[in-house]
Amino acid sequence: MTLRIDSADTDFEPLFQQLLDGKRESSQDVSDIVAGIVADVRKRGDVAVLELTNRFDRTHFASAADLRISEAEIDAAAASVTPEVRAALQTAHDRIKSHHEKQKPENQIYTDHLGVTLGTVWTPVDAVGIYVPGGLANYPSSVLMNAVPAKVAGVSRIAMVVPTPDGQIAAPILLAAKIAGVTEIYRIGGAQAVAALAYGTATIAPVDKVVGPGNAFVAAAKRQVFGKVGIDMIAGPSEVLVIADGSANPAWVAADLIAQAEHGAGARSILVTTEKGLADAVAAEVTRQIDTLPNPTHAREGWEEHSAIITVASLAEAVLLANRIASEHIELALDDPQSILGSIRHAGAIFLGHHTPEAIGDYVGGSNHVLPTAGTARFTSGLGVLDFMKRTSILGCDPSSLAALSAAAITLAEVEGLDGHGRSVSIRLNR
Amino acid sequence: MTLRIDSADTDFEPLFQQLLDGKRESSQDVSDIVAGIVADVRKRGDVAVLELTNRFDRTHFASAADLRISEAEIDAAAASVTPEVRAALQTAHDRIKSHHEKQKPENQIYTDHLGVTLGTVWTPVDAVGIYVPGGLANYPSSVLMNAVPAKVAGVSRIAMVVPTPDGQIAAPILLAAKIAGVTEIYRIGGAQAVAALAYGTATIAPVDKVVGPGNAFVAAAKRQVFGKVGIDMIAGPSEVLVIADGSANPAWVAADLIAQAEHGAGARSILVTTEKGLADAVAAEVTRQIDTLPNPTHAREGWEEHSAIITVASLAEAVLLANRIASEHIELALDDPQSILGSIRHAGAIFLGHHTPEAIGDYVGGSNHVLPTAGTARFTSGLGVLDFMKRTSILGCDPSSLAALSAAAITLAEVEGLDGHGRSVSIRLNR
Repeated sequence: MTLRIDSADTDFEPLFQQLLDGKRESSQDVSDIVAGIVADVRKRGDVAVLELTNRFDRTHFASAADLRISEAEIDAAAASVTPEVRAALQTAHDRIKSHHEKQKPENQIYTDHLGVTLGTVWTPVDAVGIYVPGGLANYPSSVLMNAVPAKVAGVSRIAMVVPTPDGQIAAPILLAAKIAGVTEIYRIGGAQAVAALAYGTATIAPVDKVVGPGNAFVAAAKRQVFGKVGIDMIAGPSEVLVIADGSANPAWVAADLIAQAEHGAGARSILVTTEKGLADAVAAEVTRQIDTLPNPTHAREGWEEHSAIITVASLAEAVLLANRIASEHIELALDDPQSILGSIRHAGAIFLGHHTPEAIGDYVGGSNHVLPTAGTARFTSGLGVLDFMKRTSILGCDPSSLAALSAAAITLAEVEGLDGHGRSVSIRLNR
Repeated sequence: MTLRIDSADTDFEPLFQQLLDGKRESSQDVSDIVAGIVADVRKRGDVAVLELTNRFDRTHFASAADLRISEAEIDAAAASVTPEVRAALQTAHDRIKSHHEKQKPENQIYTDHLGVTLGTVWTPVDAVGIYVPGGLANYPSSVLMNAVPAKVAGVSRIAMVVPTPDGQIAAPILLAAKIAGVTEIYRIGGAQAVAALAYGTATIAPVDKVVGPGNAFVAAAKRQVFGKVGIDMIAGPSEVLVIADGSANPAWVAADLIAQAEHGAGARSILVTTEKGLADAVAAEVTRQIDTLPNPTHAREGWEEHSAIITVASLAEAVLLANRIASEHIELALDDPQSILGSIRHAGAIFLGHHTPEAIGDYVGGSNHVLPTAGTARFTSGLGVLDFMKRTSILGCDPSSLAALSAAAITLAEVEGLDGHGRSVSIRLNR
């Protein structure tokens, strides 16, 4: 049932366009419910957050103070994690930190030929809120990917929220938060958690920016608090595009397609290849390998419902399709990935060659795994240090450079009908 | 009626907080109306855009083809602009371009000690839509400030929309678009213009990002199309904070406060000074100067309704307040602005010393005048080249670096219950 098309097929274009346009998420409109929750949290603060948390997460917290996870609880959870997992999280943390440190921007101040001082100064956001999915989801890597760039940016306060349905929370999540330097953790989730972070309550001080993945309620809440606080892109289902030629190993490519499909919830894997033989071999391998997974359901659904194998006449054609898809992840399963790397204009992340499965980037490569999905790589980037910093412009004139610029400024102020603007310049000219 | 407070007043904190929280815009909720317009444009395309334009702008266009402003019309409008205004726009353009060219980011590729290739590659957005207010508004500087960074980023297609109520359009706007290299201009506005840019019609190809200021309908439409396309920050009323000591010239400070207040629509000017005498002198000067404006209404309203003079004991105290306000513009009317520049953490743009009225930055300084308002400088930046580019991560392993990272990656995949992820690594290890 996986779509299989060739770029020479007469019906290729409509089928490819259908693949691009196909909805992979149920677009449940929860915006009214979320608006009610946000308004409630703004009005009643802690009381609302406590009530909503106990109701939605089936918990029995007596007071808002219970919503914060104590240092002792964090330490106990951290101590319960095996040494192997602890070492893996530390490795991931250190590599993510090291790579993100290279993203720190430099301030720039210069004086131009007129004597005007111009500049750009970068400063960190003061406080950031990180949303972490809870319950069955146990994604400590997501904690690292959101918290480490903020820490590297110089954010002094990182507040994490994670729902604990039926009181459950996975210990590795708390350990990851501890390793990353999260400053406070609250056991709350959903729209109420996003509203509490954005507007603050007596217990939870407001933050300046909210990041992290969540369900439809979380996404709608982020959209609604946007403007009061900053937010990251609203994430859609994960996806990979593998571009392969005859040099690719079909079993390896199949494993990568399955790894993406197993995310479920509309996840998609697309193979674009110049080799029909490879396409056939990969299709067979995917079917074979899925059957050997302990939990094949998600992978099978993602592969059969949302995925595709596309054969093309050349790598140049593959690049054209890649730029239309603007995939979150692109793997170049080629002996010479550099030959087409420079032609790919839109991608969240690109993985080079046969020995770079995307999963390395999910965990320990060092680059960020929070990446633009659903074609949004056309206009946005993965999460990074710059998302937790902001630029302030600097402008400085002395009497002579002000005089040099004054005529043009006054003329434009007149054109725009802003007399006060013109006067603020002319009053300094003593004429 | 302008608020006048001293940081030593017993009621300072509630009054200052009230100033921070005070609403300066009517928050008309037009989201339902806008949702209807966006859906209509998605469904009926050009037909809807044409109907809505003729209705809201009182125009009589016969077909969608008429909505595009022709090259001949642009050239005729451009030729009608005086040489003085043309020269001023060219000066502004050249300085904005020159400064923004320094913002272009560098690609970065390196190999770490394990042999892992990591990198960051920047690419421009393909197509950008710029919203320009029309009718009575004649702000060619806004065209330059939005279009030039996109052009510098390498955006190949820049589509501008500007409503022409009763068929009116100001010639300098078309000249500015021509100078800036805008590739196409449509005489449409409101939510229908934003929807047409985001989703495309038969006449208007869709863009990847929509930027530019607009009324409540435009703002609501941008919020609704966010995700389908990128958007810039939703702009609020303009504002300036002047920090002055005894070295400041009260007439100059007053002129700057008036220049900001004359924007109307909730614009705000705040003076924070260590000198009570300066505060008195500036208050008197503002009143005197406003009376001599050709059109004093907006300036008087902005000054009396939304503005404030605050006296403080020290410049350090002024900085504390500045960081709470997070103003769009900050002027440091001091002999030694460098003494506190480094302490200001949140500001859209900072203007140094007595000879840098904010209006220079509005037009010809070279820095961008599209800046974060209403405290959003806490988490976001003014418009710049990076807003029209996006980062792609690059990751590359060879067999040896993959082997070095494999144990940690497989462990984390197991923790997260993603067996397919682990296998995509282990299958490459020949074990």
